[in-house]
Amino acid sequence: MAKTRKSPRPKAETPKGFRDYFGADVAARDNMLRAIGEVYHRYGFEALESSAVETVEALGKFLPDVERPNEGVFAWEEETGDWLALRYDLTAPLARVFAQHRNDLPSPYRRYAMGPVWRNEKPGPGRFRQFYQCDADTVGSASMAADAEVCAMLCDALEAVGIERGDYVVRINNRKVLNGILEGLNVDNEKTRSLPSNFTDSLDTKYSDWEFVDPEAVLRTIDKFDKVGAEGVLELLTTGRKDQSGAFIDGVGISAQNASRVVQFMESRGKDNAETISNLRELMGAPDANLLATMGVYNIGAEGLQELQEIADLLEAQGYGPDRIVIDPSVVRGLGYYTGPVYEAELTFEILDKKGRKRQFGSVAGGGRYDDLVKRFTGQEVPATGVSIGVDRLLAALREKGRLAETEAGPVVITVMDRDRMADYLAMVGELRAAGIRAEVYLGNPKNFGNQLKYADKRGSPVAVIEGGNEKDAGIVQIKDLILGAKLAENATHEEWKARPSQFEVPRDELVARVLEILASQQSDKQADPS
Amino acid sequence: MAKTRKSPRPKAETPKGFRDYFGADVAARDNMLRAIGEVYHRYGFEALESSAVETVEALGKFLPDVERPNEGVFAWEEETGDWLALRYDLTAPLARVFAQHRNDLPSPYRRYAMGPVWRNEKPGPGRFRQFYQCDADTVGSASMAADAEVCAMLCDALEAVGIERGDYVVRINNRKVLNGILEGLNVDNEKTRSLPSNFTDSLDTKYSDWEFVDPEAVLRTIDKFDKVGAEGVLELLTTGRKDQSGAFIDGVGISAQNASRVVQFMESRGKDNAETISNLRELMGAPDANLLATMGVYNIGAEGLQELQEIADLLEAQGYGPDRIVIDPSVVRGLGYYTGPVYEAELTFEILDKKGRKRQFGSVAGGGRYDDLVKRFTGQEVPATGVSIGVDRLLAALREKGRLAETEAGPVVITVMDRDRMADYLAMVGELRAAGIRAEVYLGNPKNFGNQLKYADKRGSPVAVIEGGNEKDAGIVQIKDLILGAKLAENATHEEWKARPSQFEVPRDELVARVLEILASQQSDKQADPS
Repeated sequence: MAKTRKSPRPKAETPKGFRDYFGADVAARDNMLRAIGEVYHRYGFEALESSAVETVEALGKFLPDVERPNEGVFAWEEETGDWLALRYDLTAPLARVFAQHRNDLPSPYRRYAMGPVWRNEKPGPGRFRQFYQCDADTVGSASMAADAEVCAMLCDALEAVGIERGDYVVRINNRKVLNGILEGLNVDNEKTRSLPSNFTDSLDTKYSDWEFVDPEAVLRTIDKFDKVGAEGVLELLTTGRKDQSGAFIDGVGISAQNASRVVQFMESRGKDNAETISNLRELMGAPDANLLATMGVYNIGAEGLQELQEIADLLEAQGYGPDRIVIDPSVVRGLGYYTGPVYEAELTFEILDKKGRKRQFGSVAGGGRYDDLVKRFTGQEVPATGVSIGVDRLLAALREKGRLAETEAGPVVITVMDRDRMADYLAMVGELRAAGIRAEVYLGNPKNFGNQLKYADKRGSPVAVIEGGNEKDAGIVQIKDLILGAKLAENATHEEWKARPSQFEVPRDELVARVLEILASQQSDKQADPS
Repeated sequence: MAKTRKSPRPKAETPKGFRDYFGADVAARDNMLRAIGEVYHRYGFEALESSAVETVEALGKFLPDVERPNEGVFAWEEETGDWLALRYDLTAPLARVFAQHRNDLPSPYRRYAMGPVWRNEKPGPGRFRQFYQCDADTVGSASMAADAEVCAMLCDALEAVGIERGDYVVRINNRKVLNGILEGLNVDNEKTRSLPSNFTDSLDTKYSDWEFVDPEAVLRTIDKFDKVGAEGVLELLTTGRKDQSGAFIDGVGISAQNASRVVQFMESRGKDNAETISNLRELMGAPDANLLATMGVYNIGAEGLQELQEIADLLEAQGYGPDRIVIDPSVVRGLGYYTGPVYEAELTFEILDKKGRKRQFGSVAGGGRYDDLVKRFTGQEVPATGVSIGVDRLLAALREKGRLAETEAGPVVITVMDRDRMADYLAMVGELRAAGIRAEVYLGNPKNFGNQLKYADKRGSPVAVIEGGNEKDAGIVQIKDLILGAKLAENATHEEWKARPSQFEVPRDELVARVLEILASQQSDKQADPS
């Protein structure tokens, strides 16, 4: 009977880019998801929890980082040869769910979903490979009222979790306007690619100056506007640019003239929504635009403008005015699948970045209209629009603002003075719990009493209860107010110690009542002095 | 510009063994997790959400189906060559978390966790590859009070989600007792394998009749007691057995005499806990037991008995008597990693199985003490005990009992009579929502009014609101009580129709108040007649 050889010990580590969430963090996220879910639900949206695992083909190539289609997901091969993958967002699964269950679902189908998504990306500081999203989408409605509603709901959701009015703005734009601009610039896009061949033949002669550029590349570039500014976008659209690290990023390669028009578009936000729309209308009246209009291509821009106007009007009529909703042509949202309105919620308060510089907190949610996602499955275009809230970023924002508790109140700890009387301690804890008080008996080795109090301290316990043999005989227990005790230990005068002792005896049968009293007084102290 | 060739449409299907959860099902699970989480929290446990993805080495080979170690998980290789996998339960990640963060965590560390786990098993009817667990564990306490507490908490959790007292029982047992029995039978186990070689040498001469049998195989077999009964276990422990499908299952190969002793052990439950313990004590007094005791091996059984007694006493003292807690030697829990107390919550009410036969609902939760899991990482034994509730099975049980709503109340639907007046309808819905009423404007194509009412019906809407041009001019709206309407349509007399009309006009500025009234009256009707 030879000893079996032991394999080396496994490392106790989360995989790179993954992390664990403890106590207060889990509670904070739960509370946030619940608050957002309540808003979504009140707006008539229905909960959906789709499988975390999808077939790779159902997920498709809609990864945000379109430079690496098919990469970016965690995928594995089944014994059957099928490939499965973890969902990378909640929108691709929604398209699959709607296509699969469309005969049973109401139309429009309004659903919300919340849960983790996974991205197989290079992890970095604050950049995790599993994170939470919290989405709401309306599938089957082409109405701009659906988009307007999502924007209103987004405002309500932000306020429900504690972002105050004035601390955020929802910026809206419309892809059709951008497409209109791009067409006016003679930049290739899907519409021109699908034109009849007699047109594209004539194109070669009539439009020898056309630039055939991937509109996705233009989109991705102008999505960096917030980061690199107008100058940066100009460089990236044309010949390229050195980034902060000194690496050279290739340019998209369109002409300087066209690039500057794109930047003009992005900077066309006026002092109010009316001025912005007027600026955009003017920009689209550019030379080639009329010519293209005769071929039925131009009106996409006009349609986009009208949609923007309609959304802004609907929102304004409901009281979501320019303090919360702003038309901003610099919002493009990088994802290739948006087809109409796009929107983004930005937190406007300033925080200090790692280098101590002030900057705005930035985007915490975004979305838009995507009319083609369901079509992938069914061949039929199904209009859809929706928003995704980046839960972890929003939590980080609340933490920055000091609106999240860093720790949670711990349980009342019944210490164990006499290990043979466990039944007595369990009886106490039972009474406390029955009164709704979070409480536990110390279950470590009770030998060292100091360890028990250290444990209570580490748990953030408000109260410790002590009953040794003498107390038992006398029918009393000792109650220790640990919060008061810590405060007194810090800075109390002798008089204060005497006036408000942090430890006292109470009759055993008053245990529950007295603990409730202490918890209530701690609560009111905390409200009086939240520091 | 050639057309890009389109790839075939992807299938809109969840992968085999996965499923989606809609509306009422999501809400029911949320409510259940919340209720259980509140109980765990009140007991002093702290929330933990560990990463869904672990390294394969951290997960280890503790899969429930020990016949296929390393199989049963969804795993994939990283570019770095590391293998990652989806967690298959919440216990293995807890061991990793505790080992990783042990210097920062309080000890004992009491945590609860809830979330999906994944098993790469052959899917079957009602058998899914993603399902929820809801666990609570105490790591770092060797005290039987920790086990007793988990059992009490399990009772409280079941009652908190709506399983009434009398409809469940928590059955407890102790692996050490079983090990004691096995040792008494001269069946090989870990303890004998690790005996000093001078003993094992002598063993060959002294115990030529010893059977060296994998105790895991014995465990797995007797875990099937509920399914195959005493006769079945006897066959499976010895020469084998034909299962229902006619396939032959190999036997473990121990002698008939020893097998019958194992079955005796499993059937040694008496009329109360005292009798059960006395039965067990007698069984362990078997011939070889004393001899083994002289080598320090026997006392494991005695220790197990003492632990059982202690847990039962502690629970009894807290009011968790034999109506809820029963010592039952037939509970073994298949998992190899349990080292002491094991427990299982069983629902005792009868349901009809697929063939219309009555049977008990069975197990919905289980757990036990596992003192070796953390040791895998740190080399140090850390005592731990905990329970896992099978959330989906518990939901199924509540559904069987008719205690779960099959559908959710839908939103109030504002119909769209005049698509140019969307702003008016949005104003109405805003007022309703501000009053806390779940409401929405119909966002599909409004052309066909019948479709709007069909939609409201499909959503289970309680009320529809109608405002055409005439109503607008007259300053009124039409309110349709859809629940009452459906009821009247079914079986009302003409008088009832007249006495309580399901549709009526109200002044526009009374919209909110009147909708609230209708919702309240629907609520009280429902309570009066829950059918």
